[in-house]
Amino acid sequence: MGGYYGARLAQHGADVHFLFRSDYSAVRSKGLVVQSHDGDFTLPPERVRAYDDPQKMPAVDLLIVALKTTSNDQLASLVSPLLKPGTMILTLQNGLGNEELLADQFGAERVLGGLAFVCINRIAPGVIRHTDHGLIRLGDFTGPTSSTPRARAISDLFNASGIRCEVLDDLRYGRWEKLVWNVPFNGLGAALDLPTGRILATEDGRRLVAQLMGEVIATAQAIGVALPGSVIRNQIERTPTMGDYRTSMQIDRQENRPMEVEAILGRPLGVARSMGVSTPALEWLYRLVRLVNSGKANIGLRNEKILH
Amino acid sequence: MGGYYGARLAQHGADVHFLFRSDYSAVRSKGLVVQSHDGDFTLPPERVRAYDDPQKMPAVDLLIVALKTTSNDQLASLVSPLLKPGTMILTLQNGLGNEELLADQFGAERVLGGLAFVCINRIAPGVIRHTDHGLIRLGDFTGPTSSTPRARAISDLFNASGIRCEVLDDLRYGRWEKLVWNVPFNGLGAALDLPTGRILATEDGRRLVAQLMGEVIATAQAIGVALPGSVIRNQIERTPTMGDYRTSMQIDRQENRPMEVEAILGRPLGVARSMGVSTPALEWLYRLVRLVNSGKANIGLRNEKILH
Repeated sequence: MGGYYGARLAQHGADVHFLFRSDYSAVRSKGLVVQSHDGDFTLPPERVRAYDDPQKMPAVDLLIVALKTTSNDQLASLVSPLLKPGTMILTLQNGLGNEELLADQFGAERVLGGLAFVCINRIAPGVIRHTDHGLIRLGDFTGPTSSTPRARAISDLFNASGIRCEVLDDLRYGRWEKLVWNVPFNGLGAALDLPTGRILATEDGRRLVAQLMGEVIATAQAIGVALPGSVIRNQIERTPTMGDYRTSMQIDRQENRPMEVEAILGRPLGVARSMGVSTPALEWLYRLVRLVNSGKANIGLRNEKILH
Repeated sequence: MGGYYGARLAQHGADVHFLFRSDYSAVRSKGLVVQSHDGDFTLPPERVRAYDDPQKMPAVDLLIVALKTTSNDQLASLVSPLLKPGTMILTLQNGLGNEELLADQFGAERVLGGLAFVCINRIAPGVIRHTDHGLIRLGDFTGPTSSTPRARAISDLFNASGIRCEVLDDLRYGRWEKLVWNVPFNGLGAALDLPTGRILATEDGRRLVAQLMGEVIATAQAIGVALPGSVIRNQIERTPTMGDYRTSMQIDRQENRPMEVEAILGRPLGVARSMGVSTPALEWLYRLVRLVNSGKANIGLRNEKILH
């Protein structure tokens, strides 16, 4: 995700410094390749300021965090070298608790949050396939409104770089509204290994999705985020138009990678528990996804015995 | 399962008539091939009395029912032509409710039930792979005890035919004891697509299995089947010795075949509900497996879009 948005910004002239992990050497030799449904483009190596170590990077004006939340324990060491007075930190990470973590470690005044509605797949080192969407909705983490001058300035930069962007009046509202979708579809997709279309194909599935959405909405309302119940119907109705999506958490399961269990399920559940909101479906889903997520190294050990 | 046990009986000289469905023509031309960890053997076509229609079969002394329970709506038409006065019906089918169904349709006095602890896989038409175990525990459906002279006679026949067999004092006890294992491992295996070893590899999994087993035991106790709580520990401890088993319901999921949801989960849950036993884990598991089981025809329709 960071590679895609960074490539868009660089494509349109921004001075972008990329911190890569496993893709570093591929990008150094071949550049950054974006296969996009909006048109393919390649940033040649000389146009990608690529690094494999944040200690080698300059401090920046705006730091965009696209780290998978399962690596959040590395955030402090990755971010610290890039800060100077006034550096803004925008997290585009999934789920709940990322702005809070950054605020705790680096000061709330630096932090903005964004929600990325985008379909991206890294298909090879340095090669990104962008298949659909791309909207970012962002806002400031603190203040009476999330729509601050600096949030609007970042939004303007994105919109000028081929990235559709909206500024949120209330970042928390946006986060929780996205969780209403992510909790059932990432959670059930990962637990049951089913794409969205399969989950919604039956009355059993639609009822379970609606129950989970209702529990997320009740939790949001308990902390003052006024999501209306109509969100359930709207989200269930728009989802079939996406086809048989595999959510990121289902893909992580299939690719034997760590799933973002805590960001997407555990932290919303923690809020519900602390507020005394009854969320039985979310409790079960969390237990099952944790079970599936643990010990994934054993996947593939199968024998052909069948016990009837 | 019917092919395996019938082949064993025929191998040892019993006069066995086989009703096949899709395997009929393969058996007529090539016979019945059993690849067994106890030694391979083949019944040539002239030694297999194979039929594709019960109307063409003679009435029998002992009818062994190994039909998948998802086809139980066909039982009446399959069984009726094979009955004469005194015909005994022994069901080796999975789960709960099969003796009751046969008793309702053909008279309780005909019915016996058996539990098959066996690892069998039909690997090609007319070719059966028997990988482990094979014990049958059986008993009469009615009477103060399940251990009747005719149950013991059938057991003697099996034991004389290379099939280890025990007679149960209480068939219901045996059924429910097997359900204590089948509910969690078939249910979670099918819902999560995980083999037994993966489910038990983590504390989350062991706790969930123990909870499900406890709910099945409480349900059995509510109808007078005195399963002790120690069954939980015994069954959890013996399961890892089986390796990474895929239960029949998980295989059905992977092979895109109907799962025995009602026999293994729905009927025990119905008993719990009717007796007012609280079984929240079983309620959730049933919902999830029904969801997975429905609309399986759509499996395989995937696209490569990933929504983060």
